[in-house]
Amino acid sequence: MRNFNEDNITDAVLARLSGCRDDRTKQISEALVRHLHAFVKEIEPTEAEWASAISFLTNTGHMCSDTRQEFILLSDTLGVSMLVDAINHRFPGGATETTVLGPFYVEEAQDFKLGDNIALSQDGEPMLVEGTVRDTAGKPIEGALIETWHADHHGFYDVQQTTGKSALDMRARLRTDAEGRFWYHSVVPAAYPIPNDGPVGKMLDAQGRHPFRPAHVHFKVSAPGFETIVTHVFLDGDEYLDSDVVFGVKDALITPLKKISDGVSPAGHEVSGPVALLIYDFALPTKTK
Amino acid sequence: MRNFNEDNITDAVLARLSGCRDDRTKQISEALVRHLHAFVKEIEPTEAEWASAISFLTNTGHMCSDTRQEFILLSDTLGVSMLVDAINHRFPGGATETTVLGPFYVEEAQDFKLGDNIALSQDGEPMLVEGTVRDTAGKPIEGALIETWHADHHGFYDVQQTTGKSALDMRARLRTDAEGRFWYHSVVPAAYPIPNDGPVGKMLDAQGRHPFRPAHVHFKVSAPGFETIVTHVFLDGDEYLDSDVVFGVKDALITPLKKISDGVSPAGHEVSGPVALLIYDFALPTKTK
Repeated sequence: MRNFNEDNITDAVLARLSGCRDDRTKQISEALVRHLHAFVKEIEPTEAEWASAISFLTNTGHMCSDTRQEFILLSDTLGVSMLVDAINHRFPGGATETTVLGPFYVEEAQDFKLGDNIALSQDGEPMLVEGTVRDTAGKPIEGALIETWHADHHGFYDVQQTTGKSALDMRARLRTDAEGRFWYHSVVPAAYPIPNDGPVGKMLDAQGRHPFRPAHVHFKVSAPGFETIVTHVFLDGDEYLDSDVVFGVKDALITPLKKISDGVSPAGHEVSGPVALLIYDFALPTKTK
Repeated sequence: MRNFNEDNITDAVLARLSGCRDDRTKQISEALVRHLHAFVKEIEPTEAEWASAISFLTNTGHMCSDTRQEFILLSDTLGVSMLVDAINHRFPGGATETTVLGPFYVEEAQDFKLGDNIALSQDGEPMLVEGTVRDTAGKPIEGALIETWHADHHGFYDVQQTTGKSALDMRARLRTDAEGRFWYHSVVPAAYPIPNDGPVGKMLDAQGRHPFRPAHVHFKVSAPGFETIVTHVFLDGDEYLDSDVVFGVKDALITPLKKISDGVSPAGHEVSGPVALLIYDFALPTKTK
């Protein structure tokens, strides 16, 4: 086959995939070619625009390092990450809503005991996080793994620190107790712009968009026999709740920070001095496959 | 706006583009979001597949360097480059057919005089290239710039040489004479696999495709007042003419290599010893804008 033009090239590329050994690879490759060609045919890029696209993708790749994932930022800001999240979490009613993992998750975070302060620097407004992990029928899950991470009061994650050796901070692995409860101390995170000194930042600027995410705490909650929930808890009142640059906000994930001072928290933990209280209860759906 | 799901996220991302200052940026961004989301909705990637896609793009970016453009290879092998070429060269009948630029073009190639041997290493079967540049009415164009480049008899371009300092070779800029003629000596290029030790090579393998291009000589032909023609001349008889990995072959661009020996070429140039003769006449369309 030869003599390809606008009318026959898509079919020609699809025909070339007939030797694909794996059905799923074939399905994805075919869909990619069809949608990619349809996009190109719709916009009819000039050769200069095509070259700009090649440069954009190249620069995005070059921006990626051990501590920076620019392609995840691209996926997040184009709404693809939330779409993939929605497709993969068609959970029954009663389960905690999910949202994007984001680029700042670290698999090898440190284990903490319930009640520990996970903010090593302790720089910022004290926050006490309390909650439970239950199944969708309300039964507590003992020993559920809570992975939590969040930004500091300037809006930066530990892994974004470029000065000195970046120690993990405001990041923990905890296990629920026999009543499915968890609690820990940290500091209140701030809203922040996603890293916007790279190609994705330039794209947002060209699209007339701000790069901010509303303040939130990340959670990944897992337990044997249950679906893993990856989500955030957002702080009520944040100015970016309705314009999150990565489209991650859901009403059911917003909770007010309650200021308390000296005494005991609702879950019965002693508090000395003023503290901002964040309460969230998670419900995990039973694993179906 | 919040609470995004599979049904409303595409519209939400499109709405976020309303502040785009530039109309063309808005048009391209909107089309990208619509087609990208349609692709994701069709294939319903698992989170592991999404992560594989992120890795693939990241690795493709990391493979790009001053001498390797993996994203162009990706565009080429998915048929996008030929599609963009077709969209941008809807020339009137009589103009030379175009094909992809490819990743091996070098802007600052050396100037040569007509009749020079541009194969500095002179390693391979001698080739004499002869032809003319005319307008679509057949009138010769004097002083047209011929940029030509091709692989060696092993199928490698100069810029792919990794041992020693890579000198430019088999690559030249020439000007047509008063009769629109050009001619130069070189060596016969071989068919070759596109660089396939990176992510694109892995993709081709997963898709059950070979990485070969049929033997060809690249030409970029330009002259004031005319559209620039970027094309190849393919050597007839090559086994990959019907399965070029980048979909670049057109019948009108295929020409036989004619073996001649001692005497004069059809264009009247003296030949000593056996030489493979490649003849091609180019027709440039008048610039319309």
